[in-house]
Amino acid sequence: MNSVASDAALIGLDWGTSSLRAFLINSDGDILDEVSTSQGIMNVKGRDFDAAFHDLIGAWVDETPLPVIASGMITSRNGWVETPYVQVPAGKNDLAKVLVPFKSSKGISIQFVTGMTAEHDGAPDVMRGEETQIIGAAAMGLGDGIYVLPGTHSKWLVVKDGGIEDYKTYMTGELFAALKGHTILGTLMKDGEFSEEGFRIGVNEGLSAAGDLLNTLFHVRTMPLFEKISAEMAADYLSGMLIGAEISSGSSDIEAGQVTIVGRGDLADRYEIALSVAGHSSRRAPSNICARGHFEIAKSAGLLS
Amino acid sequence: MNSVASDAALIGLDWGTSSLRAFLINSDGDILDEVSTSQGIMNVKGRDFDAAFHDLIGAWVDETPLPVIASGMITSRNGWVETPYVQVPAGKNDLAKVLVPFKSSKGISIQFVTGMTAEHDGAPDVMRGEETQIIGAAAMGLGDGIYVLPGTHSKWLVVKDGGIEDYKTYMTGELFAALKGHTILGTLMKDGEFSEEGFRIGVNEGLSAAGDLLNTLFHVRTMPLFEKISAEMAADYLSGMLIGAEISSGSSDIEAGQVTIVGRGDLADRYEIALSVAGHSSRRAPSNICARGHFEIAKSAGLLS
Repeated sequence: MNSVASDAALIGLDWGTSSLRAFLINSDGDILDEVSTSQGIMNVKGRDFDAAFHDLIGAWVDETPLPVIASGMITSRNGWVETPYVQVPAGKNDLAKVLVPFKSSKGISIQFVTGMTAEHDGAPDVMRGEETQIIGAAAMGLGDGIYVLPGTHSKWLVVKDGGIEDYKTYMTGELFAALKGHTILGTLMKDGEFSEEGFRIGVNEGLSAAGDLLNTLFHVRTMPLFEKISAEMAADYLSGMLIGAEISSGSSDIEAGQVTIVGRGDLADRYEIALSVAGHSSRRAPSNICARGHFEIAKSAGLLS
Repeated sequence: MNSVASDAALIGLDWGTSSLRAFLINSDGDILDEVSTSQGIMNVKGRDFDAAFHDLIGAWVDETPLPVIASGMITSRNGWVETPYVQVPAGKNDLAKVLVPFKSSKGISIQFVTGMTAEHDGAPDVMRGEETQIIGAAAMGLGDGIYVLPGTHSKWLVVKDGGIEDYKTYMTGELFAALKGHTILGTLMKDGEFSEEGFRIGVNEGLSAAGDLLNTLFHVRTMPLFEKISAEMAADYLSGMLIGAEISSGSSDIEAGQVTIVGRGDLADRYEIALSVAGHSSRRAPSNICARGHFEIAKSAGLLS
């Protein structure tokens, strides 16, 4: 670790609800080393974030005190240091100006990134961490456009001039879990391989009937009941319906544009399929965008020597 | 009981998922006596529907064998005698033609009403029991128009010439419970008195943003987080949002019409408020429509001597 650490210029922490990733970053914004643990804010014993922090990055900072920047739910009410929100539109310079400084028990300086808020028709929206990822992605050559971060609370962001112009959150992932686990819709579902057929039927229904979701959800019961789809297809049918409804709303501003999908694995695959059903092309963001976001904000703040 | 039973012409059973109501009905369709228990199909011990049936109505049929007609979830796959579905549009004559006869262990003849199905864009919809209530309501002078039956799975029915022209089911009630009980939205809610203010804010948002429900649901988290509504208002805000979205879809065919609300109590009050916010007038159906539906169907089937 000492050999790589010699070029190190910054430590970035992506500290979320269920996981914690730390990046050792050089002065070009490249990742020298990376540690990932399950110590998300909900999993830290006794909420001793200070101990979890020193455990994780102790080896990197003992000899060379490096600037540390942290983003994600660690800055929420349930986290370590609660930070305010900046209002969209906002870019790396806006975030750099309002970093919240903090000293750990061992005297290590940490700069906490603020959250970002948007308002639509009088109702606020919130995020913590996604703004840093997207600023990194835009800086890595992906540029302006529409970004989607699929998940428990999916985010759709509009990026302009490298900053966040606007965004909306969708309850898609959490709604799927609640419907599958805690309503009658789950009772006709059988687990199995991913059913692309069921998923596509759902996407089409979600895309065309987004305004009628309370009604179309009931079809997740009736379609297997009438054997129009199999029980093995039902969960993917629901998944497709919700993602289709999300895309119908999230992509309503896109004329013929491309959507950048942030994330990997099964869920990103589903969004790729659903976006193509909706007539949109898509691409994947690389996995190291968060570290790059930390680097960009830290650089704007003059933290790098 | 003997004095009233002397005029009795029919026994009607409204046997649902969580409750069982039995009506002793005379030859004018009036209710002579009524028994209500919690022996819905999910609560019947060992699924011994035969025993539950004899326990409930034994006193009415021992001396005078009366025709019995039954509707509701008792005719579903999880009930006593599974019946098929008739397709809308369908009225009392259509239901009367396809009654499913059955003999109890004590030799009592029971006629089971079929369910009713509709299809929209290739996806089926189902109901069991509501069709009987609405046929009764229409026959009691409420006539044609739009009917809503609020609940776990709300139904919106279009009645024409006294029969069911079309209908749709909305997952509103069950979705509310799953969201409140099993998602992050419940964590910022505090139980209290009904907040009509919170409810009305939600209705307006649901009415105008029905197509964007996956997004507006997240406001149930952000509005209390930003103290735009109190924690005591949050549950009613969610309730209003879902009911508003339901009304936005369910009433899309109504030009300037009145909506008939079936049901009583708190939930019916909420729909009355929400319908008025949406610019619709409403009225309440009387409570005895189901017995009247049993009477109308039985009469069409020639069951009354």
